[in-house]
Amino acid sequence: MPLYSHILLATDFNSETETVIQRAKAMASSNQCTLSLIHVIEPISIAYGGEFPIDLGDLHKELEKQGRERLSELAGKLAIPEANCYLEIGLTEKEILRIAKDNSVDLIVVGSHSKHGLSLLLGSTANAILHHAECDVLAVRVRKGK
Amino acid sequence: MPLYSHILLATDFNSETETVIQRAKAMASSNQCTLSLIHVIEPISIAYGGEFPIDLGDLHKELEKQGRERLSELAGKLAIPEANCYLEIGLTEKEILRIAKDNSVDLIVVGSHSKHGLSLLLGSTANAILHHAECDVLAVRVRKGK
Repeated sequence: MPLYSHILLATDFNSETETVIQRAKAMASSNQCTLSLIHVIEPISIAYGGEFPIDLGDLHKELEKQGRERLSELAGKLAIPEANCYLEIGLTEKEILRIAKDNSVDLIVVGSHSKHGLSLLLGSTANAILHHAECDVLAVRVRKGK
Repeated sequence: MPLYSHILLATDFNSETETVIQRAKAMASSNQCTLSLIHVIEPISIAYGGEFPIDLGDLHKELEKQGRERLSELAGKLAIPEANCYLEIGLTEKEILRIAKDNSVDLIVVGSHSKHGLSLLLGSTANAILHHAECDVLAVRVRKGK
């Protein structure tokens, strides 16, 4: 009996996330279930905690464009249809939890770093995912340089 | 290809851990890998942060006896040999991480609670497991009354 029916892989496109990607892929494959991808872009005003006196519109558009391209590329590699790729703008934890809930995700896969626990790949937000997720969470340990 | 070769299920025998047990069992089964059990008894002097003026020896012996019986019972249900059952006395996080490391565990399975994140089943120690584990960690969400 499959353990999971819908797995959500949260990625920040760090080069070290290859292990995480492979683990999520294998989990989806062994459960013969849907695999979705999410990448969250945090608005600069959120990341830096304040408002900027200059127009950041162009920079945000560029970030979004790059994010979309990389998400597309990864989706292509994993043969994931576009409908299962989520590029969201907002607070990482909030967006991941929202997408997980709205799409009946039963396992969220995130990367965890050996030296810094979960903090490096997804920021301190991974902590919040672990604490507030309404589904299972698999923290995949990523080794530096692997 | 199996994802994991040695899974360690950390249990506190809470009645709600049945979901966690079933998940660990299914993960071990789908990976055709070794499943080990660990239960940690925290000495009362650690749990309450001080030394007691009375002899707690008998109480500790009783706790250990009960722990051993329940671990045996669970091992029996899951057909896990005694050699793969660890009843440890000490700080929960430290013991789980030590046993995981010493036995080349590549996935630790712990319970997570919907309302309190990971804090309820294994105490705040689960947090430490997630942050300091040298292997993957699967936090299984447990619903009250299930």
